[in-house]
Amino acid sequence: MYFASDNSGPMHPAVAQAMIAADTGYQPSYGTDPIMDGVREQIREIFEAPEAAVYLVATGTAANALALATLAQPWEAVFCTPLAHINVDECHAPEFYTGGAKLSLVGAGDKMTADQLRARIESWTKGDVHTSQRGPVQLTQVTEMGRLYTLDELHALTSVAREYGLPTFMDGARFANALVALDCSLAEMTWKAGINALSLGGTKNGCAGVEAVIFFDPKHAWEFELRRKRGAHLFSKHRYLSAQMQGYLNGDIWLEAARAANANAARLAAGLRSVPELEFVEEPAANMVFVTLPRREHQRLNAAGAVYGLWGDLEGDADERLMMRLVCDWSITHEMIDAFIELAKG
Amino acid sequence: MYFASDNSGPMHPAVAQAMIAADTGYQPSYGTDPIMDGVREQIREIFEAPEAAVYLVATGTAANALALATLAQPWEAVFCTPLAHINVDECHAPEFYTGGAKLSLVGAGDKMTADQLRARIESWTKGDVHTSQRGPVQLTQVTEMGRLYTLDELHALTSVAREYGLPTFMDGARFANALVALDCSLAEMTWKAGINALSLGGTKNGCAGVEAVIFFDPKHAWEFELRRKRGAHLFSKHRYLSAQMQGYLNGDIWLEAARAANANAARLAAGLRSVPELEFVEEPAANMVFVTLPRREHQRLNAAGAVYGLWGDLEGDADERLMMRLVCDWSITHEMIDAFIELAKG
Amino acid sequence: MYFASDNSGPMHPAVAQAMIAADTGYQPSYGTDPIMDGVREQIREIFEAPEAAVYLVATGTAANALALATLAQPWEAVFCTPLAHINVDECHAPEFYTGGAKLSLVGAGDKMTADQLRARIESWTKGDVHTSQRGPVQLTQVTEMGRLYTLDELHALTSVAREYGLPTFMDGARFANALVALDCSLAEMTWKAGINALSLGGTKNGCAGVEAVIFFDPKHAWEFELRRKRGAHLFSKHRYLSAQMQGYLNGDIWLEAARAANANAARLAAGLRSVPELEFVEEPAANMVFVTLPRREHQRLNAAGAVYGLWGDLEGDADERLMMRLVCDWSITHEMIDAFIELAKG
Amino acid sequence: MYFASDNSGPMHPAVAQAMIAADTGYQPSYGTDPIMDGVREQIREIFEAPEAAVYLVATGTAANALALATLAQPWEAVFCTPLAHINVDECHAPEFYTGGAKLSLVGAGDKMTADQLRARIESWTKGDVHTSQRGPVQLTQVTEMGRLYTLDELHALTSVAREYGLPTFMDGARFANALVALDCSLAEMTWKAGINALSLGGTKNGCAGVEAVIFFDPKHAWEFELRRKRGAHLFSKHRYLSAQMQGYLNGDIWLEAARAANANAARLAAGLRSVPELEFVEEPAANMVFVTLPRREHQRLNAAGAVYGLWGDLEGDADERLMMRLVCDWSITHEMIDAFIELAKG
Repeated sequence: MYFASDNSGPMHPAVAQAMIAADTGYQPSYGTDPIMDGVREQIREIFEAPEAAVYLVATGTAANALALATLAQPWEAVFCTPLAHINVDECHAPEFYTGGAKLSLVGAGDKMTADQLRARIESWTKGDVHTSQRGPVQLTQVTEMGRLYTLDELHALTSVAREYGLPTFMDGARFANALVALDCSLAEMTWKAGINALSLGGTKNGCAGVEAVIFFDPKHAWEFELRRKRGAHLFSKHRYLSAQMQGYLNGDIWLEAARAANANAARLAAGLRSVPELEFVEEPAANMVFVTLPRREHQRLNAAGAVYGLWGDLEGDADERLMMRLVCDWSITHEMIDAFIELAKG
Repeated sequence: MYFASDNSGPMHPAVAQAMIAADTGYQPSYGTDPIMDGVREQIREIFEAPEAAVYLVATGTAANALALATLAQPWEAVFCTPLAHINVDECHAPEFYTGGAKLSLVGAGDKMTADQLRARIESWTKGDVHTSQRGPVQLTQVTEMGRLYTLDELHALTSVAREYGLPTFMDGARFANALVALDCSLAEMTWKAGINALSLGGTKNGCAGVEAVIFFDPKHAWEFELRRKRGAHLFSKHRYLSAQMQGYLNGDIWLEAARAANANAARLAAGLRSVPELEFVEEPAANMVFVTLPRREHQRLNAAGAVYGLWGDLEGDADERLMMRLVCDWSITHEMIDAFIELAKG
Repeated sequence: MYFASDNSGPMHPAVAQAMIAADTGYQPSYGTDPIMDGVREQIREIFEAPEAAVYLVATGTAANALALATLAQPWEAVFCTPLAHINVDECHAPEFYTGGAKLSLVGAGDKMTADQLRARIESWTKGDVHTSQRGPVQLTQVTEMGRLYTLDELHALTSVAREYGLPTFMDGARFANALVALDCSLAEMTWKAGINALSLGGTKNGCAGVEAVIFFDPKHAWEFELRRKRGAHLFSKHRYLSAQMQGYLNGDIWLEAARAANANAARLAAGLRSVPELEFVEEPAANMVFVTLPRREHQRLNAAGAVYGLWGDLEGDADERLMMRLVCDWSITHEMIDAFIELAKG
Repeated sequence: MYFASDNSGPMHPAVAQAMIAADTGYQPSYGTDPIMDGVREQIREIFEAPEAAVYLVATGTAANALALATLAQPWEAVFCTPLAHINVDECHAPEFYTGGAKLSLVGAGDKMTADQLRARIESWTKGDVHTSQRGPVQLTQVTEMGRLYTLDELHALTSVAREYGLPTFMDGARFANALVALDCSLAEMTWKAGINALSLGGTKNGCAGVEAVIFFDPKHAWEFELRRKRGAHLFSKHRYLSAQMQGYLNGDIWLEAARAANANAARLAAGLRSVPELEFVEEPAANMVFVTLPRREHQRLNAAGAVYGLWGDLEGDADERLMMRLVCDWSITHEMIDAFIELAKG
């Protein structure tokens, strides 16, 4: 019963097969492989963005940090939520890659509203050399609490950014999960919604380790290439990144995997609703379920072999409520989900 | 006829199989996978270094830059040769990761002598706050020109470093090729020869993208872990790095592959010796062959489909001599080698 | 009627005279001048800290950023208040000098409590390589809102820091104003209260531009010297910094100036208390007075030539309350203070 | 007999008087003082550059590092000579401020030729993401060995830079000494000769600590302001920098001081020519004299109280030749010069 993270599961068979297929003969290195040419064209096509600059890196933190460094000056603030991965989980990679940008926290959780963003930007004095300067707006889709920005919400947020002349970056570590949940086009969730750059995650949805970084304005291309190399993120045997992304995108494997993951989470949530000890923190919108439960229940589940994320006072008393994160990827079986539901029912 | 680089070929089958074998079920992420536990123990054992800190990253530049940043202060110089990969091929990754260290160039090519190193260190004023400070000594084994440091040479160089209290780092992108050429133990070529830290390359010798970073003094462990994460080089699905290294080391696959690569280069060199147009730049010691040839010969070989590295004035006249680099990996066939030799003979 | 800042006034005559006295003949450069030797000894003596490392720089931001960079690793958080000068007024100098440290904000204003600090540190996961790591605690004395930490408060805060093994740094841009207000010894307000390093401001209290940086543990000395030079803050004609500090400290000029400044602020506050339009934001404890007033009152005062700091919606309606900061240095005259009080009374 | 450096002497009386004159009443801070307005206008006028962006900082290293950081990307090389102050004497300040740029050394000493520069730039591969990229060309005028670039030499060098699209920066720590030696206009030695930005030194020629940074293209203005503040080099009581520069420029004090310094060095050189033990290293062109002498002679001069710069093996035998640097500022007396000449004659 493994719900710890969507970075714990195996590759999707189609991705693994693409890697194996690519593993033959000689290929040019450092991103000049023909597989990458195909991937680039495919991404431009599915995003309806024929000019987009498209790159691959191996980790989500690299995608975020390199893209933000390309968009932000060292003396600028990146507007993001307190729970943003870039704020909580990247050990100052954004600060390192940007040369000392500051993360300015908007809202109190995993989502920001347009009003909150505007107020935060307004509180950031403009044109005063003493203060932090206004920089990019970063949005995570799916959010770190498993929620979504609707297209309307995205439009409202990027309108504020545009009003102040600030670029926008979408952390799409779970891009596919959001896309199938919103049931919109790639363009609608990104550049048509005012997003300037994004990471399109592969790792959490069936790849071994690959993320695409996409700039809709190709003016950033060469700088990003230099930053990627200088950050030691340009792979010599790049074909193994290209092949993952190829296997991921071809035949809509990525969308199929994301639909499966979301459906698995929905099945899990449906089953857990009848468990009186559990309280839902947010309505699950993609592939993550957040609930609270008493510490003694956690101890029981844990002892039975269930694995999941956990926050709170682990040394509190038995009734103290903890927060549990349950993540489903495409590969988790209905048996495992149902077994956990049964276990939770006690 | 593909001799461009040892980063152009496929994975060794044993490495690919280890990746496939690891590609099942759930595994803890971010380096806590059980495969990594095995890899760590194995590396400690084969290096006779039970306390060593052992980490994996995906690129050689990451290995070099992160290790040097752990050993060097931002105001220190790294002593290396002008042709060192860290100086020529990493787009300032060492400067970036160290926070602005300077590369101080020793000698005129790919190797330095103990006397050159001493003279360079002596020219670096000690304890004067105005100047660059003395920092780590970096040695590449196999060198960028395909040569080796003998054990005596390594001892002499590290003795100088130790005399000045400076740490030593070995860029072992082609570590295995050197090891089998010198026919010594891993310990003899590293810590017994005074090396404090090294990268052990996998990518150029049969892996898809993995390098081990090894500190013989574990005091550097936690700082390296933080630097790796902050540099966005900690893989979530780390098992795929671990598995590569596992498949690489098990059953001495890595040594077998290196022996094959070196033998391939020796076969190539032997065949090319009788070509009057070619002059050897260095005696090949591992898996690379450097020769000069007239530009018209390059044009002929190139037109015939041969692929290799090339330096010099590509727009000079037909007799102008260019330098050609021919690299053999384990996978290149005798047929391909012999075909190239025949082609070169004209 | 100039209350804009204590960096707007002239040098104290004793400081100016010391500069003139130093302005003759040849002196060794870069901090090796004999005047500095005297300053160092004097600071060690008045702090009862014979081992302290003592340095001079020309700006408060340099003092803060260089000291914090010496105490913090790039992956660590500096715990400070939201209104801290390092957070609000230094254009990312702390982030730049530390190589990307993050400022973690404690409390909601200019002061933090020990409980708030503890809670914040506790919220900062320890030993998890993914997150920001715990780093130094920064306290400003006098705070940015003109308030003081009592000795008990300082003890409580540094006890928390010590409990977690974190160093403490005091931004003492207005150190003298605090010291005379608390009427304690220098040691009592610093190392005896658990402070590890501090800046002792001269610029705001009668100097042209000089701040001392003091580490009570001299182990930081050489690293600080390198950081100061690398930051371009080591003066060649250092005697002019030394002389300012000499003139400032000799004969307790600095304490006399701070007493005058505090008394001026007290006189101002006393006079303003009877102005019905004004509301005090904080009880003035040193040389700054914060009041709110309706926008129309600001317009009247401003039109009459009064100069001061102002926060709020400058385009609101006439009754909208703005916050005004009035700063007194040693040089402001009773006439100017009384004239402003009369003006405010309307 | 003090010839150690032109940063050892006092302020020129006119500079000291300007500081005293400025030391009264209240003035706006952080560079908005009216004295600065005058200085800016005056510099634009004497450079015939009405659009130039003009800033003041307190150290030459700050001027160099901040200007280069404004002109260079972190992945670019700065082309300079091996003896350049930025390479030898700034403890990696350029690397720090640029975020990791590399200094690429041209020529073998203190001057570069256009051919050497072109060859070096050509050796720097263009458009290859793996390598260091081409960046600004840095020239020092007066050079670190007391020599000058003629106007023709400057034109030739900047033509090469322009051909490759690279900006040029002049380190003018001894700008005035060069200007009066070349007897040309400020514009002729700078923008008319193809220089894009420069530092105009005050500290070595009669100020306490001030350097102007001038960009002939004002597009760099706001970025430089942010970099200066972030580097902690923006003075709150900026009037004391402005006043120094005001006193320095007014009435051509700076040119008068430079002429005196150069004449003092010429007198010294003339006297030393008849000393058989001394050999001139370079023909003195401004205010510095470089000679070699046997170690025993140094010991004799040193024992007699002469102070100067010295390079070489200080522990060699008595006949071993050392290199001596003798610097004259405007303030050194003919008596002191003549006394040293007599001493040297033995």
